Amino acid sequence: MEGKRWDVIGVGQCSLDYLGRIEAYPPPDVKCEFRDLTIQGGGPTATALVALARWGLRAVLCGVVGDDAFGDEILASLCREGVDTRHVLVREGRTSQFAFIVAEPENGRRTIFWQRPTGEPLRPEEVPLDEVRAARVLLTDGLFMDAALRAAEAARKASVPVVVDAGSLRDGMLELARRSDHFIASETFARSLVGESNPEEACRKLAELGPQVVGVTLGPRGSVFHADGLFFREPAFPVEAVDTTGCGDVFHGAYVYGLLRGWPLERRVRFASWAAARVATRLGGRAGIPWPSQFPQEFAASF
Amino acid sequence: MEGKRWDVIGVGQCSLDYLGRIEAYPPPDVKCEFRDLTIQGGGPTATALVALARWGLRAVLCGVVGDDAFGDEILASLCREGVDTRHVLVREGRTSQFAFIVAEPENGRRTIFWQRPTGEPLRPEEVPLDEVRAARVLLTDGLFMDAALRAAEAARKASVPVVVDAGSLRDGMLELARRSDHFIASETFARSLVGESNPEEACRKLAELGPQVVGVTLGPRGSVFHADGLFFREPAFPVEAVDTTGCGDVFHGAYVYGLLRGWPLERRVRFASWAAARVATRLGGRAGIPWPSQFPQEFAASF
Repeated sequence: MEGKRWDVIGVGQCSLDYLGRIEAYPPPDVKCEFRDLTIQGGGPTATALVALARWGLRAVLCGVVGDDAFGDEILASLCREGVDTRHVLVREGRTSQFAFIVAEPENGRRTIFWQRPTGEPLRPEEVPLDEVRAARVLLTDGLFMDAALRAAEAARKASVPVVVDAGSLRDGMLELARRSDHFIASETFARSLVGESNPEEACRKLAELGPQVVGVTLGPRGSVFHADGLFFREPAFPVEAVDTTGCGDVFHGAYVYGLLRGWPLERRVRFASWAAARVATRLGGRAGIPWPSQFPQEFAASF
Repeated sequence: MEGKRWDVIGVGQCSLDYLGRIEAYPPPDVKCEFRDLTIQGGGPTATALVALARWGLRAVLCGVVGDDAFGDEILASLCREGVDTRHVLVREGRTSQFAFIVAEPENGRRTIFWQRPTGEPLRPEEVPLDEVRAARVLLTDGLFMDAALRAAEAARKASVPVVVDAGSLRDGMLELARRSDHFIASETFARSLVGESNPEEACRKLAELGPQVVGVTLGPRGSVFHADGLFFREPAFPVEAVDTTGCGDVFHGAYVYGLLRGWPLERRVRFASWAAARVATRLGGRAGIPWPSQFPQEFAASF
């Protein structure tokens, strides 16, 4: 496994978030003052890679941006963090994904106004398969589904573990589950799958599709995982949450980190829970990603 | 009056607006997709000057921005329109005024999330009084009150007419009215002044302070003006409104235009109503500002 070119290759979304803090979400047709505007890159895969790069791993992203000012800032935000962007394609004349998010630290709510990018999604033939095979792990959010499926297929053939961050039950997600080794879904995804809030049942169904490890994240209620026929629940780390943007993204990045360090499942999930909780203490998905110097002793051993 | 360096000098606010179109204003804590993101400069005085520059007049702004990316874009948006920015001061290490606005074309509502600039307001001693005296008209929104009062005083001493765009009844506004020749207030201002929606009564009170012309704009219900002891009401131009951002700003710019062309009051107000209505047909405060080629015949005579 050592000697590979990348520790992790990501196939998925990158976007730009503007975030502001408000006291209370306003009724329509009024002026509402916000504070502490922060501009941060977002996107499930992109933010997970930022965490991994911050923790010393070699991360490369396959994705798309528009050739607008947001696209420039998305790329800059990745470069500054040390994520390699050579495979982020720029769609000419198109806009990037952008969101304006108002967070209410008082009650933990966040309201997201977002704009869909106008550029074409990453196409399967645009995935650099040699690079996928040259990575130790593939991480994907399935937001460019056809590209994700092709990358996952190539990865598995080359014995590169496939980790999926499944936010919603989009077309192709169950096929992606069949081609994955670690499939960690949101509560929203699990509810769509089994029709109610029953994460264990969702895990059971997902496990039947083949992944070695399946899990469902439950925000402040922790997470449920299933592997080798056994379940376990991990509580969330208690934290004074300011804004939960990016918590799920970093959870997945941290899970990949544990995988690359060869940690057992329970330790991976515990680290992921800890890292996700840190993210909630700051406005935006990336500001709160901890640095290795902040790791608790139990996760501190170096590579 | 001819031979002056500037047709109009503005003392007031400039800002940056991001605007998006939504179908319906969402409840809190959800994701709401918006469309047609548009980025436009804003600020009452700045947008009025953009209209005047578009109509061929020499306009210069006195104001402040931060040295952030928003400030760069605010200045660029003015330069592109031909508004002179030599007297817009850049506050180092400070942020500019910024707003994210969601408009609902279906019902005409707009909800504004805005951030106060962190830079110091324009100081009175920062107003270039020689430039004020070298202009044919001074326009101010009173948002840098001390600077506006000083500019108005210098203007009147030099027989430069003072036009005020009074959005809200801030401290100093009545003193500014005393130093002005044309004082045109919003309905909000009028209501604060007389405690109820009685624009005629507000005009009467304002006229006592000295301005030759006073008026109150009433959005889709038109406007009320008072001059020489007489009132008149001008209806709004019927229009399919998409977003009312900037309508009031352009109303004032158009009023100044009519003043510079030597039009009688009724014609000024009629032109202002027409121009404001055009602005409402497009998202943002500036996109809908008409070009002279679009002027109806009655306003078409050239300088």
